[in-house]
Amino acid sequence: MRDVAVIGIGQTKVDEHWGKSLRELAGEAALAAMMEAQVEQVDSVYVGNMMSGVANAQAQLGSLVADWVGQRFTDAVKIESACSSGAAAFRAGYLAVASGDVDVSLVVGVEKMTDSPSNEITAALATAADADWEVDQGVSFVSLNALIMKRYMHEYGWQGIDFAEFSINAHANAVHNPYARFRKPITESRFINSPMICDPINLMDASPIGDGAAAVVLVPAERLAPSVIKILVAGSAAATDTIAIHDRVNPLWLSAVERSSKQAYAQAGISADDIDVFEYHDAFTIMAALSLEANGFAEPGKGPALAKEGEIKVGGRIPVATRGGLKARGHPVGATGMYQIVEVVQQLRGEAGETQVRHPEFGMAQNIGGSGSNIVTHILKRES
Amino acid sequence: MRDVAVIGIGQTKVDEHWGKSLRELAGEAALAAMMEAQVEQVDSVYVGNMMSGVANAQAQLGSLVADWVGQRFTDAVKIESACSSGAAAFRAGYLAVASGDVDVSLVVGVEKMTDSPSNEITAALATAADADWEVDQGVSFVSLNALIMKRYMHEYGWQGIDFAEFSINAHANAVHNPYARFRKPITESRFINSPMICDPINLMDASPIGDGAAAVVLVPAERLAPSVIKILVAGSAAATDTIAIHDRVNPLWLSAVERSSKQAYAQAGISADDIDVFEYHDAFTIMAALSLEANGFAEPGKGPALAKEGEIKVGGRIPVATRGGLKARGHPVGATGMYQIVEVVQQLRGEAGETQVRHPEFGMAQNIGGSGSNIVTHILKRES
Repeated sequence: MRDVAVIGIGQTKVDEHWGKSLRELAGEAALAAMMEAQVEQVDSVYVGNMMSGVANAQAQLGSLVADWVGQRFTDAVKIESACSSGAAAFRAGYLAVASGDVDVSLVVGVEKMTDSPSNEITAALATAADADWEVDQGVSFVSLNALIMKRYMHEYGWQGIDFAEFSINAHANAVHNPYARFRKPITESRFINSPMICDPINLMDASPIGDGAAAVVLVPAERLAPSVIKILVAGSAAATDTIAIHDRVNPLWLSAVERSSKQAYAQAGISADDIDVFEYHDAFTIMAALSLEANGFAEPGKGPALAKEGEIKVGGRIPVATRGGLKARGHPVGATGMYQIVEVVQQLRGEAGETQVRHPEFGMAQNIGGSGSNIVTHILKRES
Repeated sequence: MRDVAVIGIGQTKVDEHWGKSLRELAGEAALAAMMEAQVEQVDSVYVGNMMSGVANAQAQLGSLVADWVGQRFTDAVKIESACSSGAAAFRAGYLAVASGDVDVSLVVGVEKMTDSPSNEITAALATAADADWEVDQGVSFVSLNALIMKRYMHEYGWQGIDFAEFSINAHANAVHNPYARFRKPITESRFINSPMICDPINLMDASPIGDGAAAVVLVPAERLAPSVIKILVAGSAAATDTIAIHDRVNPLWLSAVERSSKQAYAQAGISADDIDVFEYHDAFTIMAALSLEANGFAEPGKGPALAKEGEIKVGGRIPVATRGGLKARGHPVGATGMYQIVEVVQQLRGEAGETQVRHPEFGMAQNIGGSGSNIVTHILKRES
């Protein structure tokens, strides 16, 4: 397998884009990535998207996007694994180039959620869970996460306010990201006084939906001049878990997260300690805590402690959500994994402005589908 | 890239499976393929499916199927390209093994359509077309094909009855396939007297929906003993066209079909003349005609002539729909491409019973997404 480099990135602001269609959003990010990469033609297109069939009455986004950005006759498909669709598409693009099958891959994550009534989007998000054994019993996606959080608080003795730092950090970082949906800081008092959504998850524990797209262009590293600073894919690993939470021995341990990142660390020849920046999947604060633990950054039950000690901030031991994370940049589900990749590339290039991590070498992006049932982890490396 | 072999196949009957869930259908085909392959564990799972989000309130079929067939912790995603989702998933599985990324891939195509009201399925099928510029104007997927067929008849002088042989051949072959939905022969008089759906497409021009799943297991060919008869993937190529038909210079020429098969022929080192059996995408009889032409089996406008001359029957120049095709085996959209692959494997192995083609060496399966907008072509080869 060949080394693969990211040579172009593009993204739209996460927002309520009522004036832009699904293809226009995807095209804006894709063409920005192609312009930056100075690439006019690509060999294959991978579109990460979860719910376009339900929310936009549009399937075959592969053809839709390829057509719209002038790439007729390419190989183009949509890849879906619920909330980790974006990273799964990146992985498909990576494998296509790494294998030698193609030389230039375009990967786009796109989701357009705010045109639909919110009850439809709640139902669409619930398709990430087990339709027969979870959703048909009346559980929504938020309430599944609330059940996990409640159990976690019971088991480890944390209170709701102990999760505040995850959201405060995300919002503080989003202030400096022009592509983030919510560019305003929040305080601990704002956090604890925010409306309860599904006990114990309050509004500030939960990431917002949104419309958005993010894209990259991938090529074999050997195509780049030796003198150029390269952003390489050093690790790419996916792992599934049971789709229903009740089928897991321990619902508080994300086994597939552990599997996926261990494999990615091994591919990159590093350990968790070597990760300089981590774009994690903070769809809910409980997911932020659990993912820090399963990835080896905190002991079981100690995720909130890491946040309270300030170690998740830029400058801390493991900076997370450095561009706002799902919480404040926004979570257009099928696009999120690609936003994470784009943000890690910004960090490794040194283009992250006020929230730039100092001289990062390894950045990790991890996208979680369902309630920990489909994990896709990537480690990118700066090579100068 | 390594040579890849199909070592196990499985399928369910295409039917109204009201007693089986989506995962049960997929599992039945997948476990049959794994049993035949004598494989207990796979490294990755690719699920071809178009409309589970809309029709079954279920996303992330990768995790769903992997979990159900006991493959927790694998790499698993859903691949979607409308009606060519099945073949696109096969291509993903093929590339994963060919590249050396994994050693054992499970590919499943599954669709469950008959639980939903037919107006919902009509809307779901229309998501294969351009939502903004075709469907929002009031065109359904059938009416798009009717427009193409009308133009074709006008341009080349054919009548409705001239398309009868495509359906008669498909039904005649399906009689002998236990997995086909409609196992009864039809006559020319039955064809011409069947109800009009959308002029000029009548009921017998159109393939039926259905529930079903088909699956294969893929491994590197080098893993097999030299003495074993091998079914190898000799060509795999995908190409997109404009998603909207009105954007094409000539709506009667499937350019992406031509691109895709030319590339697959080149990979296999053969020409159209060398194909011994062809599972084509006869979603409508007009698609059967256009695909015979764009693949090089008939001159432009001469597809119906080839059928009328009996050349598409088993024993003819290019046997098609040998197990019933989309028309009579049935068209559970996201599963169809995998049924085609399974049927070509049956032919190459000599397991096609009464509709066995004599000593085939090369078999082609071609899956068409949308109205010719996403084509995935595979050429399989028997190597003894």
